[in-house]
Amino acid sequence: MKLAGRFALVALCVAILALPAFAADPLPSWNDGKARQSIIAFVEKVTKSGSPDFVPPEARIATFDQDGTLWAEQPMYFQFFFALDRVKALAPQHPEWKEKEPFASLLKGDVKGALAGGERAMLEIVMATHTGNTTEEFEQIVKDWIATAKHPVTKRLYTGMIYQPMLELLAYLRANGFNTYIVSGGGIEFMRPWTETVYGIPPEQVIGSSIKTKFELRDGKPVLVRLPEINFIDDKEGKPVAINQHIGRRPIAAFGNSDGDLQMLQWTTAGSGARFALLVHHTDAEREWAYDRTSSIGRLDKALDEAQAKGWTVVDMKNDWKIIYPAGKR
Amino acid sequence: MKLAGRFALVALCVAILALPAFAADPLPSWNDGKARQSIIAFVEKVTKSGSPDFVPPEARIATFDQDGTLWAEQPMYFQFFFALDRVKALAPQHPEWKEKEPFASLLKGDVKGALAGGERAMLEIVMATHTGNTTEEFEQIVKDWIATAKHPVTKRLYTGMIYQPMLELLAYLRANGFNTYIVSGGGIEFMRPWTETVYGIPPEQVIGSSIKTKFELRDGKPVLVRLPEINFIDDKEGKPVAINQHIGRRPIAAFGNSDGDLQMLQWTTAGSGARFALLVHHTDAEREWAYDRTSSIGRLDKALDEAQAKGWTVVDMKNDWKIIYPAGKR
Repeated sequence: MKLAGRFALVALCVAILALPAFAADPLPSWNDGKARQSIIAFVEKVTKSGSPDFVPPEARIATFDQDGTLWAEQPMYFQFFFALDRVKALAPQHPEWKEKEPFASLLKGDVKGALAGGERAMLEIVMATHTGNTTEEFEQIVKDWIATAKHPVTKRLYTGMIYQPMLELLAYLRANGFNTYIVSGGGIEFMRPWTETVYGIPPEQVIGSSIKTKFELRDGKPVLVRLPEINFIDDKEGKPVAINQHIGRRPIAAFGNSDGDLQMLQWTTAGSGARFALLVHHTDAEREWAYDRTSSIGRLDKALDEAQAKGWTVVDMKNDWKIIYPAGKR
Repeated sequence: MKLAGRFALVALCVAILALPAFAADPLPSWNDGKARQSIIAFVEKVTKSGSPDFVPPEARIATFDQDGTLWAEQPMYFQFFFALDRVKALAPQHPEWKEKEPFASLLKGDVKGALAGGERAMLEIVMATHTGNTTEEFEQIVKDWIATAKHPVTKRLYTGMIYQPMLELLAYLRANGFNTYIVSGGGIEFMRPWTETVYGIPPEQVIGSSIKTKFELRDGKPVLVRLPEINFIDDKEGKPVAINQHIGRRPIAAFGNSDGDLQMLQWTTAGSGARFALLVHHTDAEREWAYDRTSSIGRLDKALDEAQAKGWTVVDMKNDWKIIYPAGKR
């Protein structure tokens, strides 16, 4: 094929591929209402070339909180269930835990008693269960757990408790040229082993809290060892800091559900041009959980006030979502 | 257009676009030799579908050191020239610097004297010139400097001292589905303002050393303030740690030029499947600089031994590269 001929064909192909696809409903699990309409209006205006609100694809950055935004978070953050299962699995190697809090209470099944020690107890549990191994060993432990562990209330796999409407939203944004990032208070290495399969979000687009790691040669083989020392807490004021550190661009859209996401939404909407902020409001005690201003997990108080004052989109789970979890995924 | 018709056309287009492009030489500034051949052999085997060495595009991660690998680094790291220019620019606001080392020597043009204070002096200079402003202010300062500042020896713009053969290599890898990352000991926010224009590497694929930043609301407007506190040094053992933190996947190819890159090359080549490691050896005193085992900037000693022992590719700049800098870029 001659060069000019190939160029003409390529140009034709590009033109054909750019035709609008036959528009099946991109958000079938969303009821028609203000939330759904505001999402679609935003995506259409930033992707319409020639529009004053047009944003080039490389700047279409959307950041999503995870716990309570992409999957459920009650009655405790799911990563904490992982930590409890790890305490049980590791107990035979730690006979001293039988006498030592917070482990002694945990091993008796008394989570409340274990957490009476507050943040320090929580930190001790996380460090004992998340560190001391290599990054590769930890990845395998997470993969094994997430494939089999079930939620104590719903009896579903935890990955069966992701929100179907949010899955559709992620896919819709990506189909419109967005890069979708997770920006979670959860552990970065707790999420990365499965977010690509479950959400379509690859490891390099997952941002989270982290512990320090250390490079070592073991018998000439390099490993990264997970140290019992916090590196970064990706919550509240930490979220814009981590977004800047990892992405180096300000998102144009941000999605959260709690006061821990407020600063991410402030940072996102303070940029110039079209911006979008959304909060998932847990209003569905029947199909999921209902909680907001007084919940210790996923408290939504200041951010709800600010959403109302600034006109951010608030999803009413009970009325905006046709279903909560993916059908049949257990 | 009917659905089936559209699908058929799309399929045809995909097929046409998948035809091999007319193969112009992808590395025209590389002489034909072992280095060039080893690069092409690696890229061909990992991209050939059905080959036992095939690597899917999402796992084609290539990491590049910057100073001495993508651009020159003599007689000092270019970021240090930036710091010196900042000292001069900020001096009127700091009358005390006239009496205070290392600034007093710097302001008299005595760089050697200023650096007699060793690492502590260097750190003081970096902190005084890189912090105290917001991320947006700092970005603008870097953009203004990089657009105008010239190298004291070559009188070129610093961006005119990038290596043309490495530019071609970056483009060749990306054309073959690779994601090309910078992993540099230099400052992440010193690089991001210009790496996309100069190397085609977007901010989210730039990893570097960093200082801490802090989220603040100033008159209701969120900003990230740059604090005079080191966050992370992305050198030596730090490089695999940072790669894991930012990318969450192990590279399959890594490119460096000094002992500061050794651990990145070890980490990269220790993964399973086809792996590639390359060192740029500065052998050209005529067109650039010649230095290796005893240089204080960009020392290449242990890594050169390990490259020879393990059969990593070593680029001999004098003999492997037809040109060093891009023609006409000044």
